[in-house]
Amino acid sequence: MFESAELGHKIDKATFREEEPKLRAALLDAQFDLRENGKFPVVILVSGVDGSGKGETINVLYEWMDPRYLSTLAFSAPTDEERERPFMWRYWRALPPKGRTGIFAGSWYSIPITERILGQLDKGDLDQRMDQINRFEAMLVNEGALVLKFWFHLSKDGQRQRLKALEKNPLTAWRVTKESWARLKTYDKLQEAAGHVLRVTNTPWAPWIVVEGTDDRYRSLTVGKIVLDALQKRLADTRDQNFPVAPPMAPKIDSLDVLTALDLAQKLERKDYETQLAKWQGRLSELVRHPEFKKHSLILAFEGSDAAGKGGSIRRITAAMDARQYQIVPVAAPTEEERAQPYLWRFWRHIPRTGRVTIFDRTWYGRVLVERVEGYCAEADWLRAYTEINDFEHELQGDGAIVIKFWLQISDKEQLRRFKEREKIEFKRFKITEEDWRNREKSAAYHTAVCDMIDRTSTGLAPWTIVEANDKGFARVKILRTICEHLEQALKTEETPKKTKDKD
Amino acid sequence: MFESAELGHKIDKATFREEEPKLRAALLDAQFDLRENGKFPVVILVSGVDGSGKGETINVLYEWMDPRYLSTLAFSAPTDEERERPFMWRYWRALPPKGRTGIFAGSWYSIPITERILGQLDKGDLDQRMDQINRFEAMLVNEGALVLKFWFHLSKDGQRQRLKALEKNPLTAWRVTKESWARLKTYDKLQEAAGHVLRVTNTPWAPWIVVEGTDDRYRSLTVGKIVLDALQKRLADTRDQNFPVAPPMAPKIDSLDVLTALDLAQKLERKDYETQLAKWQGRLSELVRHPEFKKHSLILAFEGSDAAGKGGSIRRITAAMDARQYQIVPVAAPTEEERAQPYLWRFWRHIPRTGRVTIFDRTWYGRVLVERVEGYCAEADWLRAYTEINDFEHELQGDGAIVIKFWLQISDKEQLRRFKEREKIEFKRFKITEEDWRNREKSAAYHTAVCDMIDRTSTGLAPWTIVEANDKGFARVKILRTICEHLEQALKTEETPKKTKDKD
Repeated sequence: MFESAELGHKIDKATFREEEPKLRAALLDAQFDLRENGKFPVVILVSGVDGSGKGETINVLYEWMDPRYLSTLAFSAPTDEERERPFMWRYWRALPPKGRTGIFAGSWYSIPITERILGQLDKGDLDQRMDQINRFEAMLVNEGALVLKFWFHLSKDGQRQRLKALEKNPLTAWRVTKESWARLKTYDKLQEAAGHVLRVTNTPWAPWIVVEGTDDRYRSLTVGKIVLDALQKRLADTRDQNFPVAPPMAPKIDSLDVLTALDLAQKLERKDYETQLAKWQGRLSELVRHPEFKKHSLILAFEGSDAAGKGGSIRRITAAMDARQYQIVPVAAPTEEERAQPYLWRFWRHIPRTGRVTIFDRTWYGRVLVERVEGYCAEADWLRAYTEINDFEHELQGDGAIVIKFWLQISDKEQLRRFKEREKIEFKRFKITEEDWRNREKSAAYHTAVCDMIDRTSTGLAPWTIVEANDKGFARVKILRTICEHLEQALKTEETPKKTKDKD
Repeated sequence: MFESAELGHKIDKATFREEEPKLRAALLDAQFDLRENGKFPVVILVSGVDGSGKGETINVLYEWMDPRYLSTLAFSAPTDEERERPFMWRYWRALPPKGRTGIFAGSWYSIPITERILGQLDKGDLDQRMDQINRFEAMLVNEGALVLKFWFHLSKDGQRQRLKALEKNPLTAWRVTKESWARLKTYDKLQEAAGHVLRVTNTPWAPWIVVEGTDDRYRSLTVGKIVLDALQKRLADTRDQNFPVAPPMAPKIDSLDVLTALDLAQKLERKDYETQLAKWQGRLSELVRHPEFKKHSLILAFEGSDAAGKGGSIRRITAAMDARQYQIVPVAAPTEEERAQPYLWRFWRHIPRTGRVTIFDRTWYGRVLVERVEGYCAEADWLRAYTEINDFEHELQGDGAIVIKFWLQISDKEQLRRFKEREKIEFKRFKITEEDWRNREKSAAYHTAVCDMIDRTSTGLAPWTIVEANDKGFARVKILRTICEHLEQALKTEETPKKTKDKD
């Protein structure tokens, strides 16, 4: 892995002086085109051994490119707002929007590698983390991002010499700390861990670029040329960037499916409903105040046919909680800032801290429902979304979040009745729009989309609860009961969620 | 202040039952109109003595209104990301966008009142804080927000009885803590502090609404009706909401002003430039690594004529720093999410944490420059902006941020020379646009706007540095030197910045 980066690459001053201005001008032009094009972000990871010139390389990129459209995120110890959310949240919030370049100094690789060296992560756990990272990067690339992963390498002897040289120069001496020298002692361990990590994450969509770090001029020129080349190629490539590999959808050959199998006639009598409602609301209000809940967060996802009663159900849930503890996120069309980011970004930004609740009224499943049916995204996009969504929920759960998903189903007949009823009501907020009627016409397509969604995303960790919603009382009680049961299970089978360790 | 709220107001069950459904329906309709209108946000502050029903009132609003378009922010201890930024940052980030309602449980009043009761804030400091708050709220109202400030009051005896009643009910017992009882002992102190605070912040644009908290039905109905009434009136009021009181601009009667008085012929010879540049860059790189700098942050604001050399100057600054320490914010047209917020929101979101640097390439002064000259905002808006901007910078400085502002001035002749030079250069990023030529035609209007800006916003705390920029080298060195001098002064005359106390 590192052989080519121990050959003693060097660039002499004269060559550098000749190459630099040309490279710089070309980089600036490419960066200008990236902004004008505005269709994809560039994500540059800068990793490697201590003293291999990570900081210097970033500074050179700032010198050569227009620094106003670069951002550098250095990830050291997470802040408390980050610690109280899933591991990947801090990286999602730092992603550059389309048309810009984000440099990650210390990336999603740093913590796993460090933990592996310190023996806090066994090989199996490490591989699982790397698998997650591969999936995350595949998502980024599928969303259009240009991902460049640099690893700066030094031989053991090279590292010792670099540190000495840095220490000698008064301008750079401050950068050599005790830790730098300490890390020289763990050089072999780092090489072993990093070698493994680089090997398993050396994917076709985001390969590693290993660069020898000894010679400043060689390193800078190499990185600059690679960035330029990748940018120019990507800008010139007008093909659709999506090549996801998705299994074909299974054709339906009988009329039995998860929706038609439902018994929509189930109902609760008024009296029963009131007793049960009070009972489960009381239980829920206890559970979210349970001391153990402070280690978790609760994410409720609501999807359902139009007029299926999502709003009413949500109100019955929030009635049992303190308004200061929850946030309701009604999902509508994405904003301009959200459109400049990968699809899931606009949900990540609302992920609650521990001890808090977020209720999504319509969710990330819009991708495989309305966007699929209405053709708002390419087939390739919604096909890969199933996996991306499963990964997303997996990441949430891995850090102690409790994710509960509801599909509210009503019969066509009941929906028609509710539509007509609403047309008579004066309240503007209940107005039936033309779009609602249009959606009804597409009910067969939605039916298929819902069945596929449930089949592909009802996982052991985050199963779908399908709610028979023809009777509002029955639906509300089923929802409340389901939430309480999930919470009880999570709070009882208590292990402290490990913030930097993943487990299933 | 509290007399009317100790009369023992009560609403009987029958009346409540009759009124509630009507009020609820009307509130939902008004909220719907608010969203459709989309022109202003509603900010509701919920404050008052312990046990006066603050939480209950918020929950009632959630029950009555559409909870999906409400957000509640409870401000307890600040997170570390908040602590490392100016006091008001946490409130700015929580402001609701236009068309929505934000409920603040514990607002910008909580900390000053608490500190006053604990004796941590003397009367003069408290009044200064209240003055700041008045200005902040005036800004919100001028930006269109509907601000409703509720104070829930209980007599001392009433508070004792409320706490007892809450304790008795198993559903609410958890809300009565030791602190609640402890606060009964400081009742008189709270009344005194709160009475004073309410009096001095009872402004015409954001008056306090004191509500007796004893009876749940009375309190809920009162708040509901006030919110409804205020919303309906505001929605029906199509007049321009801006009535700022601004002093008239002084007419110019001779040709001498801060710009014409400049000696633009100043220059540095190449050799001199290189020596000085290296000297001040070295100094700067030391200063931002100084241990004392970790208690401060640095905010650099760049404005200037087109082609005055802002970009080049910024690059000379960043060359002296580590890319991981600073962020450059190029200010362009606001995004959709930014347009839904008060003008200064889009700058607040980029305010650095302590130990970090943010460089604004064009700034909040756009309001009184391009927006004034091009007529992008009403005269009333840019007239009030001078005060708002001074307040903004004052808040930044109050918490240890170092704000340095540069205006880069070149002569008309030099600008023309640079424009023509750029037309010959092949680099796309330097392209002169039609807009640049148009701006040149408006140079007289810009000239006046710049002079007014400097006169009105060059304050003792945050003075403008006007940079004679016909010679690039001279300008860059002056800028670097100015930054170093400001930093030296700030790091030497060292007091630990007090996060919750304000001082000049």
